[in-house]
Amino acid sequence: MSGSLTVPGFRASGVSAGIKKNKNELDLGLIVSDVPATVAGVFTENRVKAAPLLLSKERVGARKKVRGVVVNSGNANACTGSRGADDARTTVDVIEGVLGLKAGELLVCSTGVIGVPLPIDKIIEATPSLTASLSVSGFKDYSRAIMTTDAFTKTATGVINAGGKRVKITGIAKGAGMICPNMATLLVFFMTDAAISRALLQKALKEAVDASFNSIVVDSDASTNDTVLAFANGVSGVSLKAGSKGLASFKKLLGSLATDLAMMIVKDGEGATRFIELDIKGAATVAEADKAARTLATSMLVKTAFFGGDPNWGRIMAALGSENIRFDPDKVDITFGKIKVAKDGLDTGREKAAAREMKKKEVKVTVDLKAGKAVRRLWTTDLGHGYVELNSAYRS
Amino acid sequence: MSGSLTVPGFRASGVSAGIKKNKNELDLGLIVSDVPATVAGVFTENRVKAAPLLLSKERVGARKKVRGVVVNSGNANACTGSRGADDARTTVDVIEGVLGLKAGELLVCSTGVIGVPLPIDKIIEATPSLTASLSVSGFKDYSRAIMTTDAFTKTATGVINAGGKRVKITGIAKGAGMICPNMATLLVFFMTDAAISRALLQKALKEAVDASFNSIVVDSDASTNDTVLAFANGVSGVSLKAGSKGLASFKKLLGSLATDLAMMIVKDGEGATRFIELDIKGAATVAEADKAARTLATSMLVKTAFFGGDPNWGRIMAALGSENIRFDPDKVDITFGKIKVAKDGLDTGREKAAAREMKKKEVKVTVDLKAGKAVRRLWTTDLGHGYVELNSAYRS
Repeated sequence: MSGSLTVPGFRASGVSAGIKKNKNELDLGLIVSDVPATVAGVFTENRVKAAPLLLSKERVGARKKVRGVVVNSGNANACTGSRGADDARTTVDVIEGVLGLKAGELLVCSTGVIGVPLPIDKIIEATPSLTASLSVSGFKDYSRAIMTTDAFTKTATGVINAGGKRVKITGIAKGAGMICPNMATLLVFFMTDAAISRALLQKALKEAVDASFNSIVVDSDASTNDTVLAFANGVSGVSLKAGSKGLASFKKLLGSLATDLAMMIVKDGEGATRFIELDIKGAATVAEADKAARTLATSMLVKTAFFGGDPNWGRIMAALGSENIRFDPDKVDITFGKIKVAKDGLDTGREKAAAREMKKKEVKVTVDLKAGKAVRRLWTTDLGHGYVELNSAYRS
Repeated sequence: MSGSLTVPGFRASGVSAGIKKNKNELDLGLIVSDVPATVAGVFTENRVKAAPLLLSKERVGARKKVRGVVVNSGNANACTGSRGADDARTTVDVIEGVLGLKAGELLVCSTGVIGVPLPIDKIIEATPSLTASLSVSGFKDYSRAIMTTDAFTKTATGVINAGGKRVKITGIAKGAGMICPNMATLLVFFMTDAAISRALLQKALKEAVDASFNSIVVDSDASTNDTVLAFANGVSGVSLKAGSKGLASFKKLLGSLATDLAMMIVKDGEGATRFIELDIKGAATVAEADKAARTLATSMLVKTAFFGGDPNWGRIMAALGSENIRFDPDKVDITFGKIKVAKDGLDTGREKAAAREMKKKEVKVTVDLKAGKAVRRLWTTDLGHGYVELNSAYRS
């Protein structure tokens, strides 16, 4: 899904405001729609929520249309108390003022270190250059401005044909598999020129997020700032109605772009050496399938075995057994790549062949619990020295 | 709690049966009481249970007194199907036969690699030397024979005075903080010459285990073989009755020995560089206090920050927030050593002083949720390169 990121009726920019330590890096980004755009959002479920997230969530809940979003990297504006709330508000107030928007029309996201006050003066100072550089081709700069420890920018774009007219969707994301965790926030922005109701857009976004960003696991902690937003400005003139073929195509493309971006996030990060696809089959319920997959994806013992390329299926059995998941240990099948290493809970003697599968860059692990019909697929990474290196480095 | 490990009426031994790869290492141990001993046991809650554990659990449940336990290291006899059950049974049958014990009087434990059949022939072959070398001073050999990747043997012993007579307790444990996880099994054996009812011994053991072995966390996976056993042979002639001072002293000593052994387990393991004491205060319920402590003790992000000596309290907030624990983020206090880094959810600006505390070998972390009165203390370790190294090494 490559091609120009441009979406009719949207402009974007990215500048360096001096929030990040390296003054050459972009750290302030802006997306603006020429006309009010229908908005949908999915926000972190962490009980600790950053000030900008609370403000954006309130605005998405209070109004159906907005004009865009401003994002800073280098500082999460989380655990910053009432000053943090004031700073988030000041950020949108100042930029709304310069752009002549109505109060409340701009959303805000932050990503970076937690517990440190936002350098609001630097943001105010950078506002003239940020707004002046808005352009239809500004999405690449924007995608760079929202990065923290991401090794590369993450963008995906595609077009559908609805009733003879083109409708475009572009997605831009930040987040890296194994990165400095204060900056591990997931931020994703979708822009489309479709006209679509708020309810349909929210439903489409939620489904796309569940099948993509909610199906990747790097470590067990949710961020305080995780945000996924979708803006639909209707400039294409194509209205996507409930039950229409156009809506079906739109949802399919949105889901596909979300999955592409989620895969990029898992694959990013120097810490990860392998990409793991976990397939749980035969669980008693979907909830238990999900729990089984997440247990394996967050088990330090399982993840270090992946790093070592070790077809150590005993660790998988022990991890599954330590959770409240129904299965008979004497029935479980475990397969690495195409090699079944355990059948009905017993070793098959194919360790050497399985070890070759485990040494690959991308490893598929299938566990059949034979306790029902529910399935769950999750994508994750191994746990190696790179993870420790990146996550134990002192912040200053 | 040092001193001779000898307990009147108990003999022990440890020999090399050739189960471990290194033929010079002891790998088969035996404890026998001269007379039938009251037994109590606490077993793994993992759904996947090893064959020897199932057999021992059944015997502890079926009879009040036994004569001892045989333990092999180097092979867990877990995920080994009906053959594993046969092998566990053969092990006790053969040794009971040689010692002239009644059928069912011996328990069995195994620790080592999962999914590989037990080399039962080697155990049968080593039985004559194992039984012949039983001695009142054999506990040191026994403590070596049950080791897997433990860096040192773990023993603790003490004496109480009950009604003018001495009662002794000796504890022997294996298990290491950060070790090859197929061998991370926790095995603990307590021997005492007290006379005590089965019900009182079981209650005392359970309380001691909860406050010690169930309060240490290294990684999130329970073993398939974890077992804690206590044997009381009454040879001292001291009978510990419910409500007596003697029983209170006994429970206090048992708890103290269990805590000493648990601390040794946390401190063992090349992978760990720091010993962390986590204190959760002000939780709404004990269950939530426990969940909060375990969330921090198993968070890869929190544990790598400990490794880096980084007073990164934002990670603690994010980890707590990702669980279903009631607290107001704007009220939380977090203290590293004696330095309060966050007060009412806000940074106190004492990062440099806190970093000095975090660089110590033993770090105390206190989190006050201010949501109630429940508390929980857990001991854990950091997550560093040593953990990855030990746990990713290919088994063969």
